[in-house]
Amino acid sequence: MHNKFPSQLVEQAVEQFSNLPGIGRKTALRLTLHLLSKDPSYTHKITDALNRLRDEIVYCKCCHNVSDTEICSICSDPHRDKQTICVVQNVNDVIAIENTAQYKGVYHVLGGVISPIDGIGPSQLNIDELVNRIESERIKEVILALGSTMEGDTTNFFLYRKLSVFGIKISVIARGIAVGDELEYADEVTLGRSILNRTSFDDAIKR
Amino acid sequence: MHNKFPSQLVEQAVEQFSNLPGIGRKTALRLTLHLLSKDPSYTHKITDALNRLRDEIVYCKCCHNVSDTEICSICSDPHRDKQTICVVQNVNDVIAIENTAQYKGVYHVLGGVISPIDGIGPSQLNIDELVNRIESERIKEVILALGSTMEGDTTNFFLYRKLSVFGIKISVIARGIAVGDELEYADEVTLGRSILNRTSFDDAIKR
Ligand SMILES: [Zn+2]
Ligand SMILES: [Zn+2]
Repeated sequence: MHNKFPSQLVEQAVEQFSNLPGIGRKTALRLTLHLLSKDPSYTHKITDALNRLRDEIVYCKCCHNVSDTEICSICSDPHRDKQTICVVQNVNDVIAIENTAQYKGVYHVLGGVISPIDGIGPSQLNIDELVNRIESERIKEVILALGSTMEGDTTNFFLYRKLSVFGIKISVIARGIAVGDELEYADEVTLGRSILNRTSFDDAIKR
Repeated sequence: MHNKFPSQLVEQAVEQFSNLPGIGRKTALRLTLHLLSKDPSYTHKITDALNRLRDEIVYCKCCHNVSDTEICSICSDPHRDKQTICVVQNVNDVIAIENTAQYKGVYHVLGGVISPIDGIGPSQLNIDELVNRIESERIKEVILALGSTMEGDTTNFFLYRKLSVFGIKISVIARGIAVGDELEYADEVTLGRSILNRTSFDDAIKR
């Protein structure tokens, strides 16, 4: 469907909305007309929140989670177990695991996974920072909680080789998650269980 | 699902996104993290387009369609038949009918339909402006193209009584549209046909 619009302003708003993932032109038009049906302050509240998000967001110096402060609320929480680090791909994985309320350790956000096809190598991820944490803090266990994809597997093996020299426990979350699925699509129960049932990486590669 | 967010900025962005119609909290979070994954200029392009839309939009002085100028591109198009006015509820109905490419007259946007339950009476709609157009221009036909709902029917009858004194042709779009459905949900073929097969309102009320 290609719409002819009576206004360039409408056209441009529809264009911008439909650039967002999962929003088609029909939904974009609906959202645009919705904004027009409300007071200008309604639109301004939305755009202010989005601009502030993008302009003022900070990434935690320790775990690279999104944060409003230099050190995030999880890293600075005295009740969290600082000796267990759960390694995840992205911020949404942190939020997904937090929602299971099953995990009391801390996190390390890689910012992606190794993907030669997309030109993403280890140096573009927060891997050196992870190694630094393990060297400088008294870490007992690293849980690899990456998606069950080829890239996730590649990254798991890379991290395993890199971290095994430190003599710490390295585990992977249980593969309750369907093979080929991203972590963020798993329901909370499955995800919570796969954290609890995590296995030693040594055992996992023997299977 | 109630998410605990690691950042107030994320929380507020999710909140604003999920206030939009048809966007749940899960989608809102996905959109928020999508913005974070892109350059700040990406977010600014979106928010600029939405702010400009809301702050600079103009409604056509003649037909009340959205416009970038005092008189909209349809009303000022010399190839359109100015003696036929299609009366619609909202701007999205104009866009929907334009997309059928079946109609060459002009429009009049009421801005809603009569709905006593929602406290919307004739005085809150652009009905006086429609009467003024019929009095001052040489109108031959008014096509009532409101949704096939109770409120649409009520408004049709109100307009019919109000306009019948002018001795012009008053027609309603053919009811190819399923009874109870809003106009904007109709597919383009159905909508195009129901414009072409419009019937005289006199005939319609006799059935
Ligand atoms: Zn942190
Ligand atoms: Zn106009």
